[in-house]
Amino acid sequence: MGKRLKLLAGACASMMVLTSSAQQELWGGANGAPLIQGDNTVTFAIKAPDAQQVQVQLDYGEPITMQRDTAGVWTYTTQVLPPDLYLYNYVVDGVKTLDPENVYIMRDVATVKNMFFIDGEQSRLYQAQDVPHGNVSAVWYDSPRVGKKRRMMIYTPAGYEQGKTHYPVFYLLHGSGGDETVWLHQGQAAQVLDNLIASGKAVPMIVVMPNGNVDEHAAPGSDQRGLVTPTFNHKQWMEGSFESSFADIMNYVEKHYRTLKNKKGRAIAGLSMGGFHSLYISANQPRDFGYVGLFSAAIRPMRGVESPIYDNLEEKLAEQFKQGVNLYWIGIGNDDFLYQPNKQYRALLDGKGYPYTYVESKGGHEWRNWRLYLTQFVPLLFK
Amino acid sequence: MGKRLKLLAGACASMMVLTSSAQQELWGGANGAPLIQGDNTVTFAIKAPDAQQVQVQLDYGEPITMQRDTAGVWTYTTQVLPPDLYLYNYVVDGVKTLDPENVYIMRDVATVKNMFFIDGEQSRLYQAQDVPHGNVSAVWYDSPRVGKKRRMMIYTPAGYEQGKTHYPVFYLLHGSGGDETVWLHQGQAAQVLDNLIASGKAVPMIVVMPNGNVDEHAAPGSDQRGLVTPTFNHKQWMEGSFESSFADIMNYVEKHYRTLKNKKGRAIAGLSMGGFHSLYISANQPRDFGYVGLFSAAIRPMRGVESPIYDNLEEKLAEQFKQGVNLYWIGIGNDDFLYQPNKQYRALLDGKGYPYTYVESKGGHEWRNWRLYLTQFVPLLFK
Repeated sequence: MGKRLKLLAGACASMMVLTSSAQQELWGGANGAPLIQGDNTVTFAIKAPDAQQVQVQLDYGEPITMQRDTAGVWTYTTQVLPPDLYLYNYVVDGVKTLDPENVYIMRDVATVKNMFFIDGEQSRLYQAQDVPHGNVSAVWYDSPRVGKKRRMMIYTPAGYEQGKTHYPVFYLLHGSGGDETVWLHQGQAAQVLDNLIASGKAVPMIVVMPNGNVDEHAAPGSDQRGLVTPTFNHKQWMEGSFESSFADIMNYVEKHYRTLKNKKGRAIAGLSMGGFHSLYISANQPRDFGYVGLFSAAIRPMRGVESPIYDNLEEKLAEQFKQGVNLYWIGIGNDDFLYQPNKQYRALLDGKGYPYTYVESKGGHEWRNWRLYLTQFVPLLFK
Repeated sequence: MGKRLKLLAGACASMMVLTSSAQQELWGGANGAPLIQGDNTVTFAIKAPDAQQVQVQLDYGEPITMQRDTAGVWTYTTQVLPPDLYLYNYVVDGVKTLDPENVYIMRDVATVKNMFFIDGEQSRLYQAQDVPHGNVSAVWYDSPRVGKKRRMMIYTPAGYEQGKTHYPVFYLLHGSGGDETVWLHQGQAAQVLDNLIASGKAVPMIVVMPNGNVDEHAAPGSDQRGLVTPTFNHKQWMEGSFESSFADIMNYVEKHYRTLKNKKGRAIAGLSMGGFHSLYISANQPRDFGYVGLFSAAIRPMRGVESPIYDNLEEKLAEQFKQGVNLYWIGIGNDDFLYQPNKQYRALLDGKGYPYTYVESKGGHEWRNWRLYLTQFVPLLFK
């Protein structure tokens, strides 16, 4: 039969004709949305001729009522937006809805929103560029200290697989309501690392993103709990078990990856609850971390928790700073609800003369700041 | 200061009080939805007191109008549903919307829908169970045959990191409109492999899921093309370049993973376009694959494509079957639009006396079948 027998799927269009009309849906809408103008204003548009009211909600702001045209398309144009990653959703006759024209969706604890980027120098760090990419793995490890298998995400820099080099390790921790995946989504950590490394601003490093909720094996949807609703409420919540089991994570990483196994080759940082974890893990392991980052750290007076992890912090800090810390970095927004406890903590460090770097940004307890801090902190590591 | 200085983030509730009311949104709705009853009927419910009409769309069926109660909650209860993974969305006053109470979302080419499971023997294979889990990595590899870095997903079975064993490799290919991530989402491939291996029904194996769209570096959103709308339309589409560059993928995998480097240790299968790719890759490399699976393969008479990959198929098949194939597996739904070309292809194999296994299922060109075929094919491999 020879050439006559050449086989090939039909042209794309003809395939579609042959499938049911319902499958046309797979093509999605005609246009990606929203429309980002050259001046960095954004026009949201959604076709809803039968709706009585359509609103758009940008990030977590108040819903804004859109204007309907005669064709039933509702639009709203923003003011100029600074370069960043933005979330949004629509509200159609009182029902929160995602954009039917935009497949890019981000979960934030138990809510989901669409996303878009406003391009610019800072937000370019959050977007995949034409640079070498590191690999990202979902890794299950045994945690005998809490008696279960757990999952973490591990970024290895471009070139890791090709060489024999040993790399420094950055442990990057999430906040309350988060999990091992959130730095990769909301935080765009793989893109940030790829871009900072490619430009020479950061050294190649392994980034380990564990799950700080010890009552979870893995992020919601990725373990045997099924399709549970993500929550802030965890049975084991800031009571010492994550900090006291952190050695299980370090042991796995240092056994299975080519790492630098010394203080100058290890960093730990986290946001909110993860900043709290980073403070205590580094204070309890004063010989282990050369670099510590507290991003909007959840530092508050303790009530009703008994764990040796939290005892005698002052003595532990004395030992930590006596051993020496290459960088102790504190960042917080001037409108963060945790601003005052962070100020008090800085006063403690000041009183003892412990050196630290302090960055105060605008805004509150939000991903905008945590992405920013990541891009500021990473270039300071392992140099 | 000692104990007095113990620091801790406040209780969860007090943290929330301190944040803005907008952040209450992060807690999501009160209930996960939809409600799956004990008899496997499903009640969809959405609060929309201001809407004029609310519909629910199950998978790709026609939207069904829901009933409004006096409180403005719209409901609809299905008939008994067979155990499986289901997709759905609402339509509120004509606007397609996702379920504001359900964070579990799946993308299918350029549309997104919510998901749920109806539990049962078959669908239990698709859900994460309390069994050892394999790791899943997003891996960038160099593809000199197409002149770019590209991404694939690689599943390594539980225990891979702990031992020295060499494993067989199963190359699992997606269809038109898909990418390297789709077998993990729509196909639930990691869960299927975890569960089949844990129960002893499948042998531990590495599963490699490449991207079959040679004009992409990676899935939409994961490369420098930005937040593009996913599409069926690719510049390089079933014209030989994926098949002729497949050696780049195999070379990377066999160099960087502990693999069995012989025919009995390699399988290749794919759905639709991926079945077409599997047919031609295995025919062009007759010494490489002991196991071949064509899932609803896009087998159609060729028009207007010139590639040595597609020349002289009959001679290539003769060589492939002369070399010996442990398993040549063909599966298709009796309502698939590709049923006839698959029947013709089977007639060709029958005419030559080439042995193959044939499974005909109900239904059409849909993920329901491809998940099913995966669970039927994997237990037959490497035994």
